[in-house]
Amino acid sequence: MNTLGRILTLTTFGESHGPAIGGVLDGFPAGITVDMDFVASQMRRRRPGQSNVTTGRQEQDQVEFLSGLLDGVSTGTPIAFIIRNIDQHSSDYVELKDLFRPSHADYAWEQRYGIRDWRGGGRSSARVTAPVCVAGALALLAFRKLVPELVITVFTSQIGPYSTIPDNDMDYTADMAESNHVRCPDKVLATKMEEYIHNLRKEQDSTGGCVTCIVRGLPAGTGNPVFDKLEASLAKAMLGINAAKGFEYGDGFASASQRGSEHNDAFRMENGQVTTTTNHSGGIQGGISNGQPIRFRVAFKPTPTIGREQQTVTRSGQEATITAKGRHDPCVVPRAVPVVESLTALVLLDQYLSSK
Amino acid sequence: MNTLGRILTLTTFGESHGPAIGGVLDGFPAGITVDMDFVASQMRRRRPGQSNVTTGRQEQDQVEFLSGLLDGVSTGTPIAFIIRNIDQHSSDYVELKDLFRPSHADYAWEQRYGIRDWRGGGRSSARVTAPVCVAGALALLAFRKLVPELVITVFTSQIGPYSTIPDNDMDYTADMAESNHVRCPDKVLATKMEEYIHNLRKEQDSTGGCVTCIVRGLPAGTGNPVFDKLEASLAKAMLGINAAKGFEYGDGFASASQRGSEHNDAFRMENGQVTTTTNHSGGIQGGISNGQPIRFRVAFKPTPTIGREQQTVTRSGQEATITAKGRHDPCVVPRAVPVVESLTALVLLDQYLSSK
Amino acid sequence: MNTLGRILTLTTFGESHGPAIGGVLDGFPAGITVDMDFVASQMRRRRPGQSNVTTGRQEQDQVEFLSGLLDGVSTGTPIAFIIRNIDQHSSDYVELKDLFRPSHADYAWEQRYGIRDWRGGGRSSARVTAPVCVAGALALLAFRKLVPELVITVFTSQIGPYSTIPDNDMDYTADMAESNHVRCPDKVLATKMEEYIHNLRKEQDSTGGCVTCIVRGLPAGTGNPVFDKLEASLAKAMLGINAAKGFEYGDGFASASQRGSEHNDAFRMENGQVTTTTNHSGGIQGGISNGQPIRFRVAFKPTPTIGREQQTVTRSGQEATITAKGRHDPCVVPRAVPVVESLTALVLLDQYLSSK
Amino acid sequence: MNTLGRILTLTTFGESHGPAIGGVLDGFPAGITVDMDFVASQMRRRRPGQSNVTTGRQEQDQVEFLSGLLDGVSTGTPIAFIIRNIDQHSSDYVELKDLFRPSHADYAWEQRYGIRDWRGGGRSSARVTAPVCVAGALALLAFRKLVPELVITVFTSQIGPYSTIPDNDMDYTADMAESNHVRCPDKVLATKMEEYIHNLRKEQDSTGGCVTCIVRGLPAGTGNPVFDKLEASLAKAMLGINAAKGFEYGDGFASASQRGSEHNDAFRMENGQVTTTTNHSGGIQGGISNGQPIRFRVAFKPTPTIGREQQTVTRSGQEATITAKGRHDPCVVPRAVPVVESLTALVLLDQYLSSK
Repeated sequence: MNTLGRILTLTTFGESHGPAIGGVLDGFPAGITVDMDFVASQMRRRRPGQSNVTTGRQEQDQVEFLSGLLDGVSTGTPIAFIIRNIDQHSSDYVELKDLFRPSHADYAWEQRYGIRDWRGGGRSSARVTAPVCVAGALALLAFRKLVPELVITVFTSQIGPYSTIPDNDMDYTADMAESNHVRCPDKVLATKMEEYIHNLRKEQDSTGGCVTCIVRGLPAGTGNPVFDKLEASLAKAMLGINAAKGFEYGDGFASASQRGSEHNDAFRMENGQVTTTTNHSGGIQGGISNGQPIRFRVAFKPTPTIGREQQTVTRSGQEATITAKGRHDPCVVPRAVPVVESLTALVLLDQYLSSK
Repeated sequence: MNTLGRILTLTTFGESHGPAIGGVLDGFPAGITVDMDFVASQMRRRRPGQSNVTTGRQEQDQVEFLSGLLDGVSTGTPIAFIIRNIDQHSSDYVELKDLFRPSHADYAWEQRYGIRDWRGGGRSSARVTAPVCVAGALALLAFRKLVPELVITVFTSQIGPYSTIPDNDMDYTADMAESNHVRCPDKVLATKMEEYIHNLRKEQDSTGGCVTCIVRGLPAGTGNPVFDKLEASLAKAMLGINAAKGFEYGDGFASASQRGSEHNDAFRMENGQVTTTTNHSGGIQGGISNGQPIRFRVAFKPTPTIGREQQTVTRSGQEATITAKGRHDPCVVPRAVPVVESLTALVLLDQYLSSK
Repeated sequence: MNTLGRILTLTTFGESHGPAIGGVLDGFPAGITVDMDFVASQMRRRRPGQSNVTTGRQEQDQVEFLSGLLDGVSTGTPIAFIIRNIDQHSSDYVELKDLFRPSHADYAWEQRYGIRDWRGGGRSSARVTAPVCVAGALALLAFRKLVPELVITVFTSQIGPYSTIPDNDMDYTADMAESNHVRCPDKVLATKMEEYIHNLRKEQDSTGGCVTCIVRGLPAGTGNPVFDKLEASLAKAMLGINAAKGFEYGDGFASASQRGSEHNDAFRMENGQVTTTTNHSGGIQGGISNGQPIRFRVAFKPTPTIGREQQTVTRSGQEATITAKGRHDPCVVPRAVPVVESLTALVLLDQYLSSK
Repeated sequence: MNTLGRILTLTTFGESHGPAIGGVLDGFPAGITVDMDFVASQMRRRRPGQSNVTTGRQEQDQVEFLSGLLDGVSTGTPIAFIIRNIDQHSSDYVELKDLFRPSHADYAWEQRYGIRDWRGGGRSSARVTAPVCVAGALALLAFRKLVPELVITVFTSQIGPYSTIPDNDMDYTADMAESNHVRCPDKVLATKMEEYIHNLRKEQDSTGGCVTCIVRGLPAGTGNPVFDKLEASLAKAMLGINAAKGFEYGDGFASASQRGSEHNDAFRMENGQVTTTTNHSGGIQGGISNGQPIRFRVAFKPTPTIGREQQTVTRSGQEATITAKGRHDPCVVPRAVPVVESLTALVLLDQYLSSK
């Protein structure tokens, strides 16, 4: 239940306010040099407290590798790693111990397990995405060696009312996205988004948004049939991210109003290679990559934790009100960018290894 | 790769023009009476040739159960079943043997396996959804006994430019959907959709659409954490359906432009039960059901097979044109309705069995 | 639960007196030509009624392939196959409907599922090994192409009091084993074993025995660590065979009384290759093949069905007696030979594919 | 590959001389109080350096739990734990860096992965059984609550030439086994075994042995069909233990020379309950427990590391000699007792949870 993948498997563990979170990556190829600086830089990208658009909490996110490496090179055995939870303010949560926070997992999880780690989100905290970013960094490093031409570009494509135009998707680069706090490659939009978030923070409110991912260089023929389709595996991974509400690839929901004659991607030859004139399909046909760029989008709901008073009930069934204190992101979307990138790398590496 | 589920697993097999398609359902509870008429009725709903809005092909879809039943009652052993492929016109496809059909899986699969069953879609044909409907019918029958109050309502919510209004989702019933050929519960819209499809058929074109699913009565506390979340499992199953391009649950992509103060579902008490004042979450929080109705939507692209001439390439790398002959659905969406229902039942039963 | 393997998976289904038994082999490499005569010959080897040492029952075991092949070549999609159950004498079993046969699965299964297919052994019948032999034949055909030097030799090494000498194991060939009805490569012993079984049949009794398997040519470096060790995977597969009671590899249980100085296999060079001076290890070290022949042995209990009167109880808890009628093997061991061979091929192919 | 189980899964990680070893236990029931003293006591039982019959190495084996517990009670989320590797003498191994130790995994693993952690046994060290004992302790604690009548008794039944008599198996208790260093419940034999090991140590040699396990109180109907049979799952787990060479249950290999009329276990009634007059079956029929005690035996080879000079080859293909230095067990069998117990608890809990 806490494991992703088939050939390459990532099992994660940990609660937001327990001793540590971490993961075990099994099936990772032997002989990959692990660039620790790269891992640390990916962790920094995910970390809260990076700017005024995200939470002020400081997560150090120091990764300690426990196994699977010899002199910094993968040996083929499971790579385990942990990140200690420090700067936890469990006391922030004491008064929430008996309250179900609206649109949080508190109530559903208590129904499932009969017990709930009330210290922060516990296992349903966004903190569980930290191990995903460690493993994703390793997957990216494996691809550097196995498929050097692979490039994954991820960026914020929507925050609240502000959206990029899908037609521009292919023009954006990771550098453009990383040049600002909201990770939107369109500078004008980025400024508006930052301002929007800034105002929401003042209003004790939050906002949703979207993340777009483009993958270039994945070899044609990567993927699997029927239930483990490339798009199905990506969808499953993305919907596992906290606050994710939707997934679409290629033209996605817009395809619903298209005609076949406009949606279909005609094949043609280019420099002796099969290519397509358009890419409405988003690089995947029948669950398997066709060599064109893979393109998908993930929707996120607004952060449920807001400073405004909300109606709720207690564990004993009394109606009550709740007003969040402490440090919260008004918008998780910029921080979701490296998480989407990491999961994409993990899913693609798993599918790549199983397609050979 | 051809297996869905964890506790309850469905493994399917078969190509559109091979001897038979079928499936093996393992982990199904013992002691469930299998109503063969219900299975047959579900198969009829999926079958093409039901009306003028779908293909004229006649699939008999006679299901033969081979194991796992004793006097019509499940014994706990794997339930295997097959459906013979009859009325196959493989000769329709001979001339397509060396051509890659645009936006079909032909090219990607040949890159994956180095060999391709050119007789129809082979394993990537929509025919692979037939075994899903058999297994789904069994899952529905299991729920009748295990959770009698569970009701799954699935309908066509969009075809081309015609969409239902999400606010009405909760008012629709399965009977309303099944009362017309396009399975849209809004009669006025249904008529427009039928007309639209009728015209597309004349224009040798096709259209996409959306299917909406509402689940009532699933016990709170059904689901799993992190990677096997209820929504992630649903997304994976739905994106495995042929032509599916997107999945969203609750407010889905619309959440991206919402604020926390409008998206959050406040808890309240009703008749001594915890409930919510709204259901933007779509009945799932943190991967686990909260007892409210589950609501999700799946987008489908237009049928790629169209009667118009399209540009393509041959297996040997020559540019060519292609014009589909034979019998094709201008719109797969109405037939996707029972498939979405079946996969929903299978995913929910698997999650239900693993949540106890 | 009814699935074997990780990369290459075999899911089997079917009861002895249901309509059919069969299997789905997924993950099988594309491009393997399936020699149907070879498949049929493997089925004949498993079939009862081959001689006076086994049951007189006639199983036709006609294999029908339903998917995964195009013009007799594997396409990479699931290969499903069925074998119809004919010549079933369910009426033989009517009087056993309410009795638990001693040392059969009847009682345990009824406790597990609350329902039991009383027609013969149902799902716990040795008939479930028939699909294993079909899939094993395919695995052997795959190895012919992928690792042509691989040779699997399986033979009867013990029946009742008659045993071959382990020191001779490496001298036996499949032809020697197949030259007589008991499949013992030592002709003198074979005659004694046949006579022993012949007498047991007259005495309405049965006997146990052992099967030995030698694998030559498996590349060094095939296997996996810790829980999916090569020997652990073989053990699991072998203990899944009906009536199997034990598994040992290399010197096996004899190792328990050995010293390190006699058990250890010294490494040496031969023609520029690393080899060992002895092979007490049985070709596997730390879960992974070291390039030496793999050698293991499987113990089988006597057939539980005997013509003598035995004490038992009824489903309603009354003490009773039971005397088997009908056709039964006094010794399953000769028929277990192709089953052990088939499972070995399946396990090794799975491990081989996952070790590349 | 490093994961055991289906519903309850244990993933382990770690090398003997890396920073830490550990595991992640997923699917563990919520609401189980974890008695840390019991966990520590189980770790002490496995630890080397307990007496003069095992190695003088001191492993502290301090277990740190990282997740899945709230105030010492399981929450249903993954329970991760680590044990730091301290007192490692990697320098002991420097001279072995380029030598393949006879009957160790060195050569096979290097063929598998192209790289090898030469510091001790790496991932193929017996140290990997430490996390198994932590998880096994948790499984035992779960059974205390779920099936309080379950009792697992494990003891040394053979060391070199000294064996207990199987007929006495049912008379032994855990206390009798734990009363001496070799964990043999027969005191006279125990003394001889200790003396035997003592002499082997002086002779720089080692010995194999056997461990017997008896499980009482497992409910009838626990287990699964065909490939995940109870005995098959136990066999797989046991063959995954370092140095294990064989597994048998019930009468095991002795069944091979028995007749049906002597092996079969007649059913009879006792106090209104179905029971059997004998238990040659070892409590399992057709993969599922029949309510009688489960009885199995595991064979272990002699420790491969011995102080005598042995012939071997170097990584570059030169013949060489090797003489182990450092601290080594002349016999691993007494330390295997808690490992067998732990794996038994894990396998049974997994099967129990999946049989409900």
